[in-house]
Parts: sequence; structure tokens; C-alpha cells
Amino acid sequence: MLPRQGVTPALARFVASTRWDDIPDSVRHEAKRALLNFFAVAIAGCRTKPIELALKSLAEFSGGKQATIVGRTERIDALNAAFLNAAGANVFDYCDTHLPTVVHPTSPLAPAVLAMAELRKVTGPEFLLAFILGFEIECRVGAVVSPGHYPKGWHITSTCGVFGAAAAAAKLLGLSETQIVWALGNASTQSAGLCECLGWPAKSVSVGNAARNGLFSALLADKGFEGPPEPIAGAQGWIAAMGEPPDWPALLDNLGKSWEVANNSIKPYPAGFVIHPLLDLALDWRQENPNATVTKVTARGNPLLVQRTDRPEVATGRESQVSLQHAVAAALVLGKAGLEQFTDACVNDPKVGALRKHITVSSDPAISTIAVDMEFTTSDGKVHKRSTQAARGSAANPLKDAEIERKLRDEARSWNARHDIQPLIDAVWTLDKSADVSTLAALSVPR
Amino acid sequence: MLPRQGVTPALARFVASTRWDDIPDSVRHEAKRALLNFFAVAIAGCRTKPIELALKSLAEFSGGKQATIVGRTERIDALNAAFLNAAGANVFDYCDTHLPTVVHPTSPLAPAVLAMAELRKVTGPEFLLAFILGFEIECRVGAVVSPGHYPKGWHITSTCGVFGAAAAAAKLLGLSETQIVWALGNASTQSAGLCECLGWPAKSVSVGNAARNGLFSALLADKGFEGPPEPIAGAQGWIAAMGEPPDWPALLDNLGKSWEVANNSIKPYPAGFVIHPLLDLALDWRQENPNATVTKVTARGNPLLVQRTDRPEVATGRESQVSLQHAVAAALVLGKAGLEQFTDACVNDPKVGALRKHITVSSDPAISTIAVDMEFTTSDGKVHKRSTQAARGSAANPLKDAEIERKLRDEARSWNARHDIQPLIDAVWTLDKSADVSTLAALSVPR
Repeated sequence: MLPRQGVTPALARFVASTRWDDIPDSVRHEAKRALLNFFAVAIAGCRTKPIELALKSLAEFSGGKQATIVGRTERIDALNAAFLNAAGANVFDYCDTHLPTVVHPTSPLAPAVLAMAELRKVTGPEFLLAFILGFEIECRVGAVVSPGHYPKGWHITSTCGVFGAAAAAAKLLGLSETQIVWALGNASTQSAGLCECLGWPAKSVSVGNAARNGLFSALLADKGFEGPPEPIAGAQGWIAAMGEPPDWPALLDNLGKSWEVANNSIKPYPAGFVIHPLLDLALDWRQENPNATVTKVTARGNPLLVQRTDRPEVATGRESQVSLQHAVAAALVLGKAGLEQFTDACVNDPKVGALRKHITVSSDPAISTIAVDMEFTTSDGKVHKRSTQAARGSAANPLKDAEIERKLRDEARSWNARHDIQPLIDAVWTLDKSADVSTLAALSVPR
Repeated sequence: MLPRQGVTPALARFVASTRWDDIPDSVRHEAKRALLNFFAVAIAGCRTKPIELALKSLAEFSGGKQATIVGRTERIDALNAAFLNAAGANVFDYCDTHLPTVVHPTSPLAPAVLAMAELRKVTGPEFLLAFILGFEIECRVGAVVSPGHYPKGWHITSTCGVFGAAAAAAKLLGLSETQIVWALGNASTQSAGLCECLGWPAKSVSVGNAARNGLFSALLADKGFEGPPEPIAGAQGWIAAMGEPPDWPALLDNLGKSWEVANNSIKPYPAGFVIHPLLDLALDWRQENPNATVTKVTARGNPLLVQRTDRPEVATGRESQVSLQHAVAAALVLGKAGLEQFTDACVNDPKVGALRKHITVSSDPAISTIAVDMEFTTSDGKVHKRSTQAARGSAANPLKDAEIERKLRDEARSWNARHDIQPLIDAVWTLDKSADVSTLAALSVPR
């Protein structure tokens, strides 16, 4: 590629100059939705094996107790809190998705902003503004190297998350345009993460680093730690090293006019996206027919649904997340499609296993990936037809605010039935009126 | 590229199974030479701006005082010590070089090994063995993606250093073959660093991370933090993401039979390598003729010498490192070619500046990059011819042990004239007889 000058400075100028008043109400609202979802998935992940082991490994070296580990009573220094919270939020791949890039933007970003709010005094508008700007930089940096970057093996949430975390922390530190260029330079030289690690605890290392190192990048720049003038688009900079033909308009056009957080998508279920329309119908049907016994299910959907998820035999919880048979069977038997329905235990549930065998799928290219036609056969021999054109959580049918709240409540309750998460929900919705965000993260911790 | 299975396990098996008795004496000796040079360059860098600022940034978050910051009286936790020591050792580009890959192997590697020796009980042979194995892994991982990797913009010392640090720390932790695969997986997903940052403090971030994250990778694996079975050569693994056609023999052939530390090169001067033969002759001439006044110098050398370093006008210390005119003038006027001769102050020395104008160079493709012919004209009008075929520090003329010792003594003295560095020198030469290396790093600190 031909290097360009002035690219990183343009991003830095945008971050430095954008004010709270520049952010439309709808964009502010999307940011709050992303944060609520973040707390749901971070609580879900906070006691998993990767987080327990990483916490054990890091605690030996940490001194401060400055910052909250979401959902846990332990405290740790702000850099390590950022690491653990980002890693935890992404453990289940249940976090939000920026559909144009498949970046999961909030997992590496929110932890850096939360850590800053525990380090320095930050108001709600400052907090949301930094989050929105970090989101913008993270997704645009992802877009400039897409679509080639991810298929090559780069874990785009990690490689781009570090930019978002750096930009957001830089904004909260009040850095100048030049210092933000340094922060983005420090971030670019820490950008890392491989898809080969997906499915293993090792995945969490690069996601955690994205938050931790993004925060570190901004803290260094704040101290005067200088970097090159064009780290992203220079001759030996980030895009050059990544080796992708850059999509310059995706990086720079309409900065401050369009907002990437508006392209954010929040998952209602911890399963492959193409299974979501089936889960919508199965859960709705089950709710409407609580006493009926289903003996057989057929589905007709997009070819991608068949290619990726026609998997009647499953052995592990992880595998069950990409089995339409398991997902539909569990939803019908248990009336839910949360994390508990995609565990080894649920895979081995005899009722779920029995029903999986009677679920089949056929392919129809005329049906989109967010639509499906289904038939539920009940024990009385009757056949019940259902269909949907737009799965919940898709761009055409985003989750309702109440559904995101419910996701957070469910996750909080699943760890601790007595954990009252309502104060956290209220605090997020009223963030723009908060004078001090330092106690926000701690509301995720059960008393 | 076509992915391969069994590559990372082969490296892990080599690390797990190699014993001290397998290491030839000459290889052990090279390791000690690399360590002495490391202490010289780490002391040189330990009070520079990037290290001062990074220490300030990190101290706020660090709890432990487990480990030594080379050359300084402060102590910090082991992960951050690894970061600071690696970053410091590489500040001046005065560290050792693995010529086939241009990796500077010891800067990211030694700090991880030293930190481990302050965390756990480590004997001298264990210490040297881990260092030699880390060196091997780091350079072979660099070789498999060379020669394309570095010119694309990847700072190879950083991207490969993390593997060396991980392998060495894994060896000292006594990890199993499977755990070493995990450690190398954790390292692969943290591999980062851009050449665009060269010449800026930002460069130090990725070098420091290589040591810190390599150590972290092994500590995680020790706790049971699992990774994929083939992180380096898998379909979405490190080589695939880096996008280079892999040189498999460079990675795997003769493991345990040939030793990359034997290809290590130690710089006598903190200047571009092509200037080294000129400095040899200028320093020798000055020593032999302490009272003569040189009025003019001409040199005839390899075309690369002319292309890269024919730079009679220089403005900064950094630029002076790639100016043959400055280097030769300073050597003749001051009788030295150490770090002090490549500072802004020395650039502005009127005597050095005056002589720079009378130094010219011509190009001769028949002369190798490590050779040069020179003529020194003195104030009496006489012309003195000198030539060398193999610069000091080149593969054909490696630095003598005493010259490396002198480099370390000079650096220690330049910070603190009363700092007796002899105990450190003695400790490194007798490492193979040491029962406990925990106090080694602290010998670098002036009392």
C-alpha cells in the first residue's frame, strides 16, 4: 500500500475536538444499551476458568486495589482490572457485534473506560462521550483492514480493541491531539491476537490485553511518552504490517457525522447468529403452548444455516452453540436459551437429547439468514406452522431495551439469586445525569 | 500457506527435553557473552526518558517489589521489571544482533529469565539453559517468517522476542511439553510491534511487552491456562496471520544440533554496522598517534556504506549514529566511540564539527560491508594508509571477551563513576557454578 500522512492526526483531532453536545440522543442511547449488555456478559464470564486462572496469575504482581473486577468482590489495580473485565466479557462470545467488521467493540472498550472512572473523577457525559469515541475509532480501524483482516487469522476484536480503549482513555485524560496520536501509536504497536486461539482460554489473553494495553497507551501518552506522527498509515505502520489494501473511506469519511455505535448488534442468545430466528420461534411457541409435547420439528432456512449448524449430534457445551438441533431442543424442553442451555450438562440432558434426534432442516436460498420457516408437530399429530422475517437482535429487529435489561438480570441472578442488579440498570440509563461514575462498576458486585 | 500440525509441539518438546548436559561449552560461553552485553546496554538505557516515563506510568499499578530494575535502586514487580529491563536494553539499538534475522535476541529474553530468577530459586545452569533455549526459539521463529517479515513493518525483536521469553520462562517453571505449547500459544497471540515506532519512545513499548508478555504467557500456562495445539503453524495461527511464506527448515531443522546463539553478534559501537570498520581504524590510528592532528580523511568502502551513512551534516545525536563523518570525526577528536560520542552535545562539539567537513567517502563494490580502506592526512601533509578486512564485532572478528567486559565497565562508569561492576562480571562468567541466581540482577545496581 502507499503510505499516507495525516490519517492518525485526523482521528486524533476527531477524538480531541468532539464534545458531548455533538452526540445525538439516539447515539447516546445506543451506548447505554451496549454498556448494559457489557455488564451482562462480563458478569457471565467473571467466574469462568480463564478469569480465575488469569486473576491468580496477575494477583501476585498487582499492588493497587483501585478498580473493580465486574461481578466479583476482589479488587485489583486498574490495568489488570481492564484486562480481566475485557477477557471476562468475551469468554462466551455473547457480547455485542459491530456487524460490518464482526468486531465485538464493547468488551475491550468498556473496561478501559470503567477503570479510568475509578482512577480519576469522571462525569456521566464524559464517560459516555469517551465510550462513543472509542467505539468509533475501534470500528473504523477495523473497517479499514476489512474484509481481509479477520479471515487471515487476526482476532479483530483484540487487534482493533486496543485502539478503541486507547482513544477512550485518552479522551478521559484530556489529552491533546498530539498526545492522542502518541496514544494511538502506542496502541498500534501493541495490536495483537490470533483466531487460532478461539475456543481456548488463550483467546482471552489478547482480548484482555486490548483493554489493558489501550489504557496503558493513553497513560503513557499522558506522561509525555512520544510516538511517530503516522503510526496507523505510515510506511511501516499498522496497516502496512497487516498487509491489507486499506479502505480509506471506511476509516475517515463522515467522521463525526455517522456513528458506528448505531451499527451495533446485541445478541439475545449465546448461539450462532443463524440459529437466532429458530430460537425466537421455538421460545415463542413454547410460551404460547406451555403444556404441549413436541415430537418433531422441521425448519427451512438459508443455506448458511444448514452448512454451519445442521449438527444433530453434539458432545460439548461449546459445540452445542453451533447446533440448531440442540438449540431448538433445549429451548422447547427448558423454555430458555441462555448460557445454561449451552453447557455440557444441558447437552447430556436426556430429554433434550431425545428431541434433538427429531429436528431436521432444509435449505432455501430465497430465505435470508435472519429469517426461517418452521413446523412444530405435537404428540396429537397436529402440525403448527410458524415463521419470522427478522430475528431478534438483527439490524431489522434490534433487541428491545427491556430485553437487554432481562439479559443482565438473568446473568446476575444465575450467579447469585439475591443479587439486586436494578441499581446498576438504573445507573446506566441515567448516566448522562451522573456527576461521578466512580461507583458504577461496583454496582455489578453482589453485596 | 498450508497449515501444519506438530510444529509447535516439536519446539515445545525440544524446550522440555533439552538438558544442561546437551549444551556444548562454546554455546554456554556465547550465552554468558550475550548476558554481559545485555547488562551493558540495559545500564546504558535504564535512566533514559522512555524508561523514566514508563516507570512512572507503571509504578502506580504495581504492588510487588520482587524484582530488580537493572542499574536502578527502585524495585518493582517481576512482570513490570521484565518490561522495563527489556525496553531499557533496547533504547540505544546497542544490543546484540542475530545476523540472519536482525532480531536483537537478548533484550526481550534476558529480562524474563532474570525476573524468574528473582521469583523462584534458579541455579546458574538452569538459568543459562533457559536463556539458550529461549534464544533458540526466538531466532528460529524469526527465521521462519524472514526475510519478508521485517521489511513489511514488523519489529522482529518484539514480535519474536515474546516467544523467546515465553520459552525460557516455561523452562524455568518446569512446564510439561503440553504446557509449553500453551505458553507459546499465549505468546503468539501477544506478538506485536511496528518498525514505524523506531526512533521514538513508542518503540520501547513493544520490546518491553515482549519480555513481560512472554513471562506472563508461561506463568499462565503454569496455572493450567490452555491454548490451541498448533498456535504457530495452524490455519489461523501466527505464521498465517503474518502472511509470510514459511521457511520450515529454518524453524525446525537441526533443533538441538545447531545453536543460534553461535550466530550472535555484539556491537562495539552504538553506530550503524557499516561504519564499524571505519571506527576500528580511526580509534586504532588515534591510539597509535595520540599527538598528531588529522586534517583530512578519505575512505573507500562498500556501496551500502555510502548509501546509508555519507552524511556530513548532522543535527541530532540520533542522526549522528548513521553519519560516517560524525563517527570518524568524534573518534579522532575524542578517542572514543561510545554512547557519549553520539549525543546532541557531541554533534555540537565545534572540534568534531570542524573535522566532519573534511571527511569524504567513495564507493567500491569490491569491498565488503565489514571492510574499508582509509587515508588519514595529518597537519604535516603526510598521508597514512590503513585498511581492515573484518570489523570488530563481525562474524569474522567477534568482540573479545575483554572488549565486552570493557563495554559493560564503560556503561556502568558513565552513570556512576564509583560503581564497581566487577562482581557482576565475575558472577556472569561463573554462572555455571552458581547454586542461586537470585542476586545476579541486583549486582547491576550501584550501592
